[in-house]
Amino acid sequence: MLPPTIEWAGNRIRLVDQRRLPHELVMVEATTTEELCGFIATLAVRGAPALGAAGAMGVALAWVRGEDVAAAGAVIKATRPTAVNLAWGVDRALAAADPVAEALRLAEDDVARNMAIGRHGAALIAPGSRVLTHCHTGSLACVGWGTALGVIRAAWESGTDLSVWVDETRPLLQGARLTAWELQTLGIPATLVADVMAGSLMASGDVDLAIVGADRIAANGDVANKIGTYQVAVLCHHHGIPFYVAAPRSTFDPATPDGASIEVEERSADEVTSFAGARSAPVGMAALNRAFDVTPAALVAGYVTEDGVFRSPPSFG
Amino acid sequence: MLPPTIEWAGNRIRLVDQRRLPHELVMVEATTTEELCGFIATLAVRGAPALGAAGAMGVALAWVRGEDVAAAGAVIKATRPTAVNLAWGVDRALAAADPVAEALRLAEDDVARNMAIGRHGAALIAPGSRVLTHCHTGSLACVGWGTALGVIRAAWESGTDLSVWVDETRPLLQGARLTAWELQTLGIPATLVADVMAGSLMASGDVDLAIVGADRIAANGDVANKIGTYQVAVLCHHHGIPFYVAAPRSTFDPATPDGASIEVEERSADEVTSFAGARSAPVGMAALNRAFDVTPAALVAGYVTEDGVFRSPPSFG
Repeated sequence: MLPPTIEWAGNRIRLVDQRRLPHELVMVEATTTEELCGFIATLAVRGAPALGAAGAMGVALAWVRGEDVAAAGAVIKATRPTAVNLAWGVDRALAAADPVAEALRLAEDDVARNMAIGRHGAALIAPGSRVLTHCHTGSLACVGWGTALGVIRAAWESGTDLSVWVDETRPLLQGARLTAWELQTLGIPATLVADVMAGSLMASGDVDLAIVGADRIAANGDVANKIGTYQVAVLCHHHGIPFYVAAPRSTFDPATPDGASIEVEERSADEVTSFAGARSAPVGMAALNRAFDVTPAALVAGYVTEDGVFRSPPSFG
Repeated sequence: MLPPTIEWAGNRIRLVDQRRLPHELVMVEATTTEELCGFIATLAVRGAPALGAAGAMGVALAWVRGEDVAAAGAVIKATRPTAVNLAWGVDRALAAADPVAEALRLAEDDVARNMAIGRHGAALIAPGSRVLTHCHTGSLACVGWGTALGVIRAAWESGTDLSVWVDETRPLLQGARLTAWELQTLGIPATLVADVMAGSLMASGDVDLAIVGADRIAANGDVANKIGTYQVAVLCHHHGIPFYVAAPRSTFDPATPDGASIEVEERSADEVTSFAGARSAPVGMAALNRAFDVTPAALVAGYVTEDGVFRSPPSFG
């Protein structure tokens, strides 16, 4: 069983430390804005919906401590500027009379919306499908259940036979660490592959569809998501394989007209030159580490939301 | 300066242990067929042309030891069945009256051919080009100089300003470990990226051409090479970027009609479930690890050989 990924614990925020999975399941607690931002920046908590809850709970934390909630909200938002859900959660709590009640409401709402995404998306997965996914979009990415991985889980739990190709998702290996762990925990058949193998699997006829999450979806349907998502979409297009994006309404950002207006963060070069303390590249080697890429709407077969599956981006935000 | 990647040292074979790069430069020696096969199987020596020399020197080693050279050759060939150069080197030495002289001739010939590949290919690289490469095809992959990386080196040393995007090349990270190290040693501007970033770099207009090596090229021009090569080729095709393959004539196999007839090895799942010695996936996670993929000839803009650049596969073998 999975614990809640993030929960309000009175005057502090308790969360699963995802940096230590899959080796050990450890809970950590944030009692200040600074501690919370540290957890967000180092990806102890990650995934668009979980970040929404983290943003709201961060404002709630500042509120119960009698601090300047607007200032705390600004600091939290700046920690990961591409993650629209983080800012959305902060703004929701800032606008509420009682930020704590709002944060709790938002957390409960997340699970309900994800389960609705799962129900709608499950219909896309035919019996016997081999489903490829990138990065991690499961329960740990959310308050619970998951988005793209929640679709796979919903299909599986409704009795659809399926198997999953798990992209390991360099550089931070969220696929190998988190998606693999969740699928294993849920008993869903899954096989880990290096990201370089997606094209080969498609060419050999071993992929029936791909489904991923999103960090931000622009008004025109362009999708910002984990680096590597774009090339999965191009490969699907080349092989005639449908590529789906599963995300709650809160990920659709009407204020962002298209992918070109999305700021793509760069992360530390160390994530590319090493992993888990093991250095792969020679000392002094330059590296570029874009955190996200943008998949054009033309490559997306459908957007799976809590309100249904849409061929073009629905106009809610 | 780089030492010879592999050399005949009287009654033994001395080679650079590429498993220990880029952290330390260590030479190891094979005095028996068994030791040599161990080095080949564990990729202490790898790269198509270096394997050709290894195959010939392996037969030479059995010969000076008074062993059954045909039996030794069969054992060596079976160590990596997809690597056509390994079999080619074995067969060259087996057919010679003096396998030692033949192995030495083959090693000298390799460097000369690679330098010719470099001269022909250098003309493809316009000043200011940003060149993407996958895996490792430099001096360490050969007896000396290199194939695809040798083209980049030849262009650079002839005065062409250029820079290189180095795919890290999971799972064994030959790009991060070897290509990065050689380019750094040669002083050629280079930036390491995770394999998932190739598509993003192309979409942002930061790649002018891609050039890779080959393990085997079929009669119809289909190319077997390191896993991940195929998706680089598809991404180049999608973005209208030329994709070149650099290889000596010995890599072209007229006995293989097309890519479908190339046996693709699978390697240990452990290479995928761990990263540079650090375990990434949970214990018990299934993984698939195809060593190679096949790029259809239609995606190849040109074959760079010691005899020139060809738009379609030349009919030598």
